[in-house]
Amino acid sequence: MKVLVLNGPNLHLLGQREPSIYGYETLADIETLVERVADDLGVTIECRQSNHEGELVEWIGDARADCDGIVINPAAYTHTSVAIRDAVAASGLPVVELHISNVSARESFRRTSFIAPVCLGMLSGFGVRGYEWAVRALVEHLRRTSKGKTV
Amino acid sequence: MKVLVLNGPNLHLLGQREPSIYGYETLADIETLVERVADDLGVTIECRQSNHEGELVEWIGDARADCDGIVINPAAYTHTSVAIRDAVAASGLPVVELHISNVSARESFRRTSFIAPVCLGMLSGFGVRGYEWAVRALVEHLRRTSKGKTV
Amino acid sequence: MKVLVLNGPNLHLLGQREPSIYGYETLADIETLVERVADDLGVTIECRQSNHEGELVEWIGDARADCDGIVINPAAYTHTSVAIRDAVAASGLPVVELHISNVSARESFRRTSFIAPVCLGMLSGFGVRGYEWAVRALVEHLRRTSKGKTV
Amino acid sequence: MKVLVLNGPNLHLLGQREPSIYGYETLADIETLVERVADDLGVTIECRQSNHEGELVEWIGDARADCDGIVINPAAYTHTSVAIRDAVAASGLPVVELHISNVSARESFRRTSFIAPVCLGMLSGFGVRGYEWAVRALVEHLRRTSKGKTV
Amino acid sequence: MKVLVLNGPNLHLLGQREPSIYGYETLADIETLVERVADDLGVTIECRQSNHEGELVEWIGDARADCDGIVINPAAYTHTSVAIRDAVAASGLPVVELHISNVSARESFRRTSFIAPVCLGMLSGFGVRGYEWAVRALVEHLRRTSKGKTV
Amino acid sequence: MKVLVLNGPNLHLLGQREPSIYGYETLADIETLVERVADDLGVTIECRQSNHEGELVEWIGDARADCDGIVINPAAYTHTSVAIRDAVAASGLPVVELHISNVSARESFRRTSFIAPVCLGMLSGFGVRGYEWAVRALVEHLRRTSKGKTV
Amino acid sequence: MKVLVLNGPNLHLLGQREPSIYGYETLADIETLVERVADDLGVTIECRQSNHEGELVEWIGDARADCDGIVINPAAYTHTSVAIRDAVAASGLPVVELHISNVSARESFRRTSFIAPVCLGMLSGFGVRGYEWAVRALVEHLRRTSKGKTV
Amino acid sequence: MKVLVLNGPNLHLLGQREPSIYGYETLADIETLVERVADDLGVTIECRQSNHEGELVEWIGDARADCDGIVINPAAYTHTSVAIRDAVAASGLPVVELHISNVSARESFRRTSFIAPVCLGMLSGFGVRGYEWAVRALVEHLRRTSKGKTV
Amino acid sequence: MKVLVLNGPNLHLLGQREPSIYGYETLADIETLVERVADDLGVTIECRQSNHEGELVEWIGDARADCDGIVINPAAYTHTSVAIRDAVAASGLPVVELHISNVSARESFRRTSFIAPVCLGMLSGFGVRGYEWAVRALVEHLRRTSKGKTV
Amino acid sequence: MKVLVLNGPNLHLLGQREPSIYGYETLADIETLVERVADDLGVTIECRQSNHEGELVEWIGDARADCDGIVINPAAYTHTSVAIRDAVAASGLPVVELHISNVSARESFRRTSFIAPVCLGMLSGFGVRGYEWAVRALVEHLRRTSKGKTV
Amino acid sequence: MKVLVLNGPNLHLLGQREPSIYGYETLADIETLVERVADDLGVTIECRQSNHEGELVEWIGDARADCDGIVINPAAYTHTSVAIRDAVAASGLPVVELHISNVSARESFRRTSFIAPVCLGMLSGFGVRGYEWAVRALVEHLRRTSKGKTV
Amino acid sequence: MKVLVLNGPNLHLLGQREPSIYGYETLADIETLVERVADDLGVTIECRQSNHEGELVEWIGDARADCDGIVINPAAYTHTSVAIRDAVAASGLPVVELHISNVSARESFRRTSFIAPVCLGMLSGFGVRGYEWAVRALVEHLRRTSKGKTV
Repeated sequence: MKVLVLNGPNLHLLGQREPSIYGYETLADIETLVERVADDLGVTIECRQSNHEGELVEWIGDARADCDGIVINPAAYTHTSVAIRDAVAASGLPVVELHISNVSARESFRRTSFIAPVCLGMLSGFGVRGYEWAVRALVEHLRRTSKGKTV
Repeated sequence: MKVLVLNGPNLHLLGQREPSIYGYETLADIETLVERVADDLGVTIECRQSNHEGELVEWIGDARADCDGIVINPAAYTHTSVAIRDAVAASGLPVVELHISNVSARESFRRTSFIAPVCLGMLSGFGVRGYEWAVRALVEHLRRTSKGKTV
Repeated sequence: MKVLVLNGPNLHLLGQREPSIYGYETLADIETLVERVADDLGVTIECRQSNHEGELVEWIGDARADCDGIVINPAAYTHTSVAIRDAVAASGLPVVELHISNVSARESFRRTSFIAPVCLGMLSGFGVRGYEWAVRALVEHLRRTSKGKTV
Repeated sequence: MKVLVLNGPNLHLLGQREPSIYGYETLADIETLVERVADDLGVTIECRQSNHEGELVEWIGDARADCDGIVINPAAYTHTSVAIRDAVAASGLPVVELHISNVSARESFRRTSFIAPVCLGMLSGFGVRGYEWAVRALVEHLRRTSKGKTV
Repeated sequence: MKVLVLNGPNLHLLGQREPSIYGYETLADIETLVERVADDLGVTIECRQSNHEGELVEWIGDARADCDGIVINPAAYTHTSVAIRDAVAASGLPVVELHISNVSARESFRRTSFIAPVCLGMLSGFGVRGYEWAVRALVEHLRRTSKGKTV
Repeated sequence: MKVLVLNGPNLHLLGQREPSIYGYETLADIETLVERVADDLGVTIECRQSNHEGELVEWIGDARADCDGIVINPAAYTHTSVAIRDAVAASGLPVVELHISNVSARESFRRTSFIAPVCLGMLSGFGVRGYEWAVRALVEHLRRTSKGKTV
Repeated sequence: MKVLVLNGPNLHLLGQREPSIYGYETLADIETLVERVADDLGVTIECRQSNHEGELVEWIGDARADCDGIVINPAAYTHTSVAIRDAVAASGLPVVELHISNVSARESFRRTSFIAPVCLGMLSGFGVRGYEWAVRALVEHLRRTSKGKTV
Repeated sequence: MKVLVLNGPNLHLLGQREPSIYGYETLADIETLVERVADDLGVTIECRQSNHEGELVEWIGDARADCDGIVINPAAYTHTSVAIRDAVAASGLPVVELHISNVSARESFRRTSFIAPVCLGMLSGFGVRGYEWAVRALVEHLRRTSKGKTV
Repeated sequence: MKVLVLNGPNLHLLGQREPSIYGYETLADIETLVERVADDLGVTIECRQSNHEGELVEWIGDARADCDGIVINPAAYTHTSVAIRDAVAASGLPVVELHISNVSARESFRRTSFIAPVCLGMLSGFGVRGYEWAVRALVEHLRRTSKGKTV
Repeated sequence: MKVLVLNGPNLHLLGQREPSIYGYETLADIETLVERVADDLGVTIECRQSNHEGELVEWIGDARADCDGIVINPAAYTHTSVAIRDAVAASGLPVVELHISNVSARESFRRTSFIAPVCLGMLSGFGVRGYEWAVRALVEHLRRTSKGKTV
Repeated sequence: MKVLVLNGPNLHLLGQREPSIYGYETLADIETLVERVADDLGVTIECRQSNHEGELVEWIGDARADCDGIVINPAAYTHTSVAIRDAVAASGLPVVELHISNVSARESFRRTSFIAPVCLGMLSGFGVRGYEWAVRALVEHLRRTSKGKTV
Repeated sequence: MKVLVLNGPNLHLLGQREPSIYGYETLADIETLVERVADDLGVTIECRQSNHEGELVEWIGDARADCDGIVINPAAYTHTSVAIRDAVAASGLPVVELHISNVSARESFRRTSFIAPVCLGMLSGFGVRGYEWAVRALVEHLRRTSKGKTV
C-alpha cells in the first residue's frame, strides 16, 4: 500500500514563514513524522511539494498508476483551484485534505474549498501533527474498504 | 486528563438514520470505540448526547470545572448555533469539531460552521472512526501544550 | 394508521397571539378539529406542542416507532432549524409542513424553509382549517402509497 | 358559487412529461377529479389551461365578473410572472396557488413565487390530488367568509 | 408625425384595479386625454393595449415602419421582459417609459427596469396625467432633434 | 402658488460639464426656461443650486413655510443622501425628482435613488426640458389635489 | 408594576467568560444592581436566566399574565431566534433589548437582530450598567404611556 | 429524421435590427442556409419563429410527436423563461441552444440561461453560420446515439 | 466634566416632522431635558445641531480639546457617513450613539450604522427620553473609568 | 492557414477520467479527429495540452507569430484564469472556447467563464465531436473575414 | 504649471489622529514636503483641506480655470461621495487619488472608491511621503502629455 | 540594498499587447527605466518576468535571502492568486504592488486584489512610469525604516 503526501505552494518555507500561524516545524520535519507513521503502519509514503498548480495536477493524475490514496495540503490552491479539484475527482482515489492552521478562523476567503467536496474527508488546525492523523485516517479507510472491516 | 465527547441533535438515531450518509454504526459503537482509544491513551472519557442546544451549552460551560478538552459533533447546530459558539469560546478549553460525513460535499448550508472558528481544529468525512482521530489529536495537543513537546 | 400532529413554538398562545394574523381559534380548537377529521377518516391522531427545538427533534425521532406520518407546523423553527430538517429526513416518514398564515406574504425571512425540501408537501394560508387539509392529504397519500391506488 | 381552475404552461403535457416528477395522471384526469369534488361540494367549476402568460392574465381579469375564487397552478410562470401577480391582486378574488410537485425540493429558482404573496394560500407536493385540497380549502374559505362561520 | 402609445398587462382593468394605487380613470379616459394632447400638438396618436409580451414585441417591431416614437407603459413586463427591451433597442425609435404609480415606492422588484436603459427617458408617479407629459416630452424631443432646435 | 426648484452638486457647471451627457444648456438657461413656464402657469418660482448636502436639507426644511411644492434634481446626492430623503419626507410637500440624463442607462450605482420613494414622482432623460415637464406635472398635481379635479 | 429581566445563553458564566469583552461582574451582581434600581423606582423585578431558547419563549409568553414589561439580553439567540422574536411580538408587552458589549463592533453576524424590530428599543455597549438604563427606560416608558406624561 | 429550428422574439427583424451586433443576414437567409445543410445531411428541417413564449412552449411540446431534435435560438427568452426550460425538459428530445452573438460579451443578464442546463449543448458567437454548426452537431449526435457510433 | 450633545440633519425640525415616528417634543425640549439631567449629575452640557456632515466632523474634532465625551444622534448620517465615523475614532473620546425612533423597525438601510462600531455604546427607540439615558450612561462611564469604580 | 488547438488541465487523462461525463475518447482520438477535419478543410493544425496556466498563457502569446486562430478547451482554468483571458485578448486572434460536457448543467461555479467574453464564440456539450465544429466554425470565420464572404 | 493638492475630512487632525495608522506628521508637514517637491519640479502648488463634501466639489469645479491637475486625498469621502466623483469627471483635469494608509488592508468598506475610476491613477500606503510621489507622477504625466515625451 | 522587480503574466508582450490600454513601451524599456532609477538611488535592481504563478511564488520566497524589498506587477494574478499573497506575507519583506493601467476603471473583477492587503502600498494608472515611483517609494521606505528618518 502506497500513500502520496502532497504539499502545495509556500509550504517549502514552513518553519520560517509566519511561525505564529504555521509553527516552527519544517517540511523536513513533516517528512520525518510522516515516514515514522508510515513505518508504524507498514505502508510506503512518497512526499512531494510544489508551488505549481499544474505540477500538482500532474502528480495527482500520475498517482492513479501506483498509489492507493493521497494526503494533500493544497495550501493557497484550496481556495482557487478548480484544476486540482478536477484532478482529484479524475484520479478516483480516496484523498484527504489537510490544513496546518485552522482555516475557519482566518480570512473569509479561506473558508471555501474547491477540493474538499471531492475528497474523502478533511482536517485542519492540528499543526504539522495533522499529517499523522491524515495518514492514519486514510490508511485505516483503505484497509477497511479493502476488507469490509467495520469499527 | 479528562475529555468530554459531545454529540448533538439526531445522533441518538445513528445507525438507523440514512445509513448511506452516516453508516451503520450506532452511538453505542462510538462510545465503545472512544473508550478503547481512551484506554489506549490513558485518559478519562465522558460521552453525552443531547438534542437540546441549551443542554449542550450548559455541558460545555460545566466542562470548565473538570475537563481538559472537548470533542464535539454539533451536527445540525454547527450551522445555526451562535450559542454553542459562545459557549465554546467562553469555556477556554481546546475543542475539536467533528463530522461523520464530509459536510463539504452536501447542501451548501452545511459548508458554514459557526463553531469551527473558535475551535482548535476540525475534521470531517472519516465516518465514526473520525472520533478516534479527534480524541487522539486533542490528547496529543493537550500533552504537547502542557509539556512544550514538539513533533 | 396513526398520525402525529406537531406544533412548534408560540403556538400554545394561539387565539391570544396577534389574532389579525393567526385568528381567534386556540390550540384546543385545533385538536378538536383534527380529532373530528381523524374520526371521519378512521385514523388515530396524537397532538403535541413544544417550544423546544430539541423536544420536537426527539418526538420526530420517536415517531418512527409508532406513527405512519407527521403533520408539523414548525412555526418559527421553519426558518432556522436544520436540526428539525435532519430529524424529518432521518424519520423516513412522510411529513406535511403547514402554516396557519400565508408566510409568503410576511417578512422576507419567513420565505425560506429548511424543512419543506425534506417533506412530502406543504400548505400555508388557510388558517387553522389548514390542519384539516394537511391531515386529509397525508392520510390519502398513506393509503394510496400502501395500496397503489391512483386518482 | 363558481370556481375557476387555471393551469399554466406545459401542464397540457401532464402524464407524458417527466412522470417521475409529475406522475402519470393527465390534465383530463385532473378535470375529472375536480368535477367530482365540485359535485360533492355543490359548486360550479371551470377548468382552463394555457401556455400563454397573457391569456392567463386575461382569464384572471375576466374572472372578476362571474367567479367567486380561483385555484391556479401557475407552473413555470410562478417564478417569473409579475403580470400574473398583478392580475391576481387586481382581481380582488381569493386565489389558491397549487403545485403538483414539492417545489421546495427542486432547483433553487423554483423556491421563489411572485404569486403566493397575493394569494389566500398555497399548497405543493401532493401530486394531482392537491387539486382536491385546493378546491376544498377555497370553497370552505368562501363559505366561512360569506357566513362568518368559525371552525 | 405619429406616436404609438402602448399599454401592457392588466392596464385594461384600469379604474377597477386597486384604485388606491392606480386611481379611478380608465383606459378609455387615458385615450381621451392622449388624443386631446395630440390634437393640441398636431400629431397623430395610436393607442393599443395588450396582455401579451409577444404582441407588444410585435407592435414595437412594426412601429419602425410608420411611427416616429413610442410611449410605453410596460406595467409588469417592465421588470421581467428582456424581449421588450430588445424590441425597443431594435426599433431604433425614441421611446418614453411611463408608470402611473411611483414604482420606486412599492415592492423592491419594481425598482428594476429592463426597458428604461434603452429608452430616451422615463417618468413615474404622476397618475394617468403622466401620459400627457410623456407625449409632450416625446413630441418636443422629436421636433427638436429633427430641427436642431435648442431650449 | 410657489414652487421651489432645487439643483444639487455640480449642476452649476452645466453646459461646460461633459456636454455629451448633459448637453450645452447652462443653469441660467434652465432658470429662464423655468420662469417662462411659471409665467405661462401663473405661479411663482424660486431657483437655487447648492453643492452642499446640508444646505439642500435646510432649504427643503424651510420650504414648508412658504412653498407649495418642490422640483429637485439631487444629482449625485440622489444615490447617497438619506439626509435629503429625510428632509423631503419631513417637509410634507409634494416633490418631483428630475434627472437631465437617463440615469438608468449609466453606471449601476446611479440606478438607486434614496429620494424617489418619498417623492410624488420622478422623470429622467429629457435633457433640461425635463424641468418644464417637472414643473407642469407638479403644478397640475397641486391644482388637482386642491380642487378635487380629475382628468 | 412588575418587570421581568431575562438573560439568555452563556450569561450564567458572566464574570468568568472572556472578561475582556464582558467584564468581571457576575449574574448575581446584575441581579443586585437591578434590584437596587427597582427599589429606587418602586417597582417589582424578577430575574431569570436560561440557556434554552424554548424556555425563554415560554417565560415571555407567561409574562403576559403578570408583568408590565420585559428587559431581555437574548445573547447569542439575538442573531438566530425567530421563535423569541415571535414570542416578544405575541406578548404585546413593551420589551427592551440589551447587550453588555457593543455588538456593532464585533463579528458581522452579531449586527443582525431578529428581536430588535419588535422591541420598544435597544441599547448595547454599556457593560452590566446597561441593565440599569434598560430598567429605568422601560419603567419611565410604562409610566408615561399609562399617564400620558410628556418630557 | 426531422429537425425543428425555432427562433424566438425579435428574430423576425434580423438583418434590420442592430446589424453591428446581429449582422445583415435575414431570417430568410437563415432558412436558406439551414435547408442547404439539411439537404447535405439528408434530413428534413422545419423552421419557425415566434415572439410569443407560449407559442414556443407549444411548438416544443408538439415536437415530441414528429421531430427527432430541436435547434433553438431562444433570444431574449433565454434569460427569463422557465416555461421554455420546462418545455424542453418535458419534450425528452435533444435540444441545441444557439445564439448569433457572443452573449458572454454583452450585458451581464445575458450570461444566465434557464434553458442551457436542460439542453444537449449550446453554441454562441458564430453569427448566422452558427445555425449550420448547430444542425450538424445535432444530426451527428442523433445518428451516433441511434447507431452507437463513436468518433 | 463636560459633555457635548450633537444632533444631526433634520433634527432642527423635531416636533413638526413626522410626529408619528419622532414624537411632538422639539429640539428645545431636548435641550431643556438634557440640561436638567446635567444639573442633576453636576456636569456641563453643550448642545449643537447641524445639517452639515462637515460641520459635525469639525465639532467632533474640536471636542478633543475641551470635552470629556459626546452624545450624538447622527440621524441620516448614521447610515452614510464614513467621515463622522473617522472623526469619532480620531477624537479618542467615549461617544454614545442615540436614535429617537427604533431604527431596527424601519427601512432596511437604517439597520446599518457606520458610527456604532467606533462608539462606546448605542441606544435607540426611547423617544427624546433616550437623551437622558445616553447622558447618564456616558457620565457614569466617565466617572467609573476615571475612578476604577465597579458596579 | 494554421489553427492552434489547445487543451487545458486534466485533459491528458481523457478517456480514463469520469467517462460518464467526458466519454471514452482519448486526447489522441481528438487529435486524430481534428487532423482529419484539418485535411478536409486544407488547413494546418497544431495540438497541444498543458496542465500549467503559465504554459497556456505562453503558447497563446506565441501564437500571434504563426497562427491564424485558436480553438481552446481551457477546462478548469475557464472559471479561474484571468491570465488566460488576458492572453487571449492580447493575442488579437479569433479564439473559440470549447467544452466537451455541457458546463451549464454542472456545478454553479462552472457557469462562469473568464475567457468567453474575449472569444469569438463558444460551444459546449457536444462531446469530443465539439472539436470538429469548433475548428470548422473558426476556419469558416477566418475565410469569410479574409474574403468578405457572406452566408 | 499649477497643481492643486486637496485634503478631505479629518485630515486637519493629522499627527494627532490615530498615529499608528496615519503617522505623526501633520498637515503642515505635508504642505512643507509638497512645496519642496514643487520647487524641485518648478511648478506652483496650492494646498487646501476641507471637511465639507460640497466645498471639495466647488474647489474641484473651480480648478478648471487655473490649475493643470489635482492631487486629492478624499479620505472618508472616497467611499461615499458620488458628488466628488462627478466633480472630478466634470473638471476634465488629470487627478491623482492618494491615501496615506494602505486602505486595502483595513475595513472592507474602504476597498471601494467612487473616485478612482475617473482619476488618472491612485496610490496608497506610502504614508505622507505618498504626496511626493503623487505630485511627481502627476507633473511627469502633464509634461509628457503636453510634449509627447515617452519613457 | 537590492530590490527585486517582478512582472507577472502577459507582461512579456508589453508594447504589442493592447497599446490603447498598456502603451507602447516594452518590458525592455521598463528594465532600462528601472535601472536608470536604481543608479540614481544607488541600489541594485533585479528584473524578472514569469507567466507561471508557481515561479512567482518561488522567486518571492527566495527573495528573503538576498533582497530588501520587492516591486511587483502581478497582472492577472492580482485578482486570483492566494498563493502569491501567501508568498508575499511569508517573505516578511516590504512589497509594492503596481499596475500600469488604472485597474479601478476597468472590469469589476479587476477591482479586487488578493495581494494589496499584505503589501506596503500600491499604485496604478501611471503607465510604465509607475515603476519609477514604485521603486523610489520602496527605497525611500527602506531607508527611512532602517534609519528612523522622518519626512
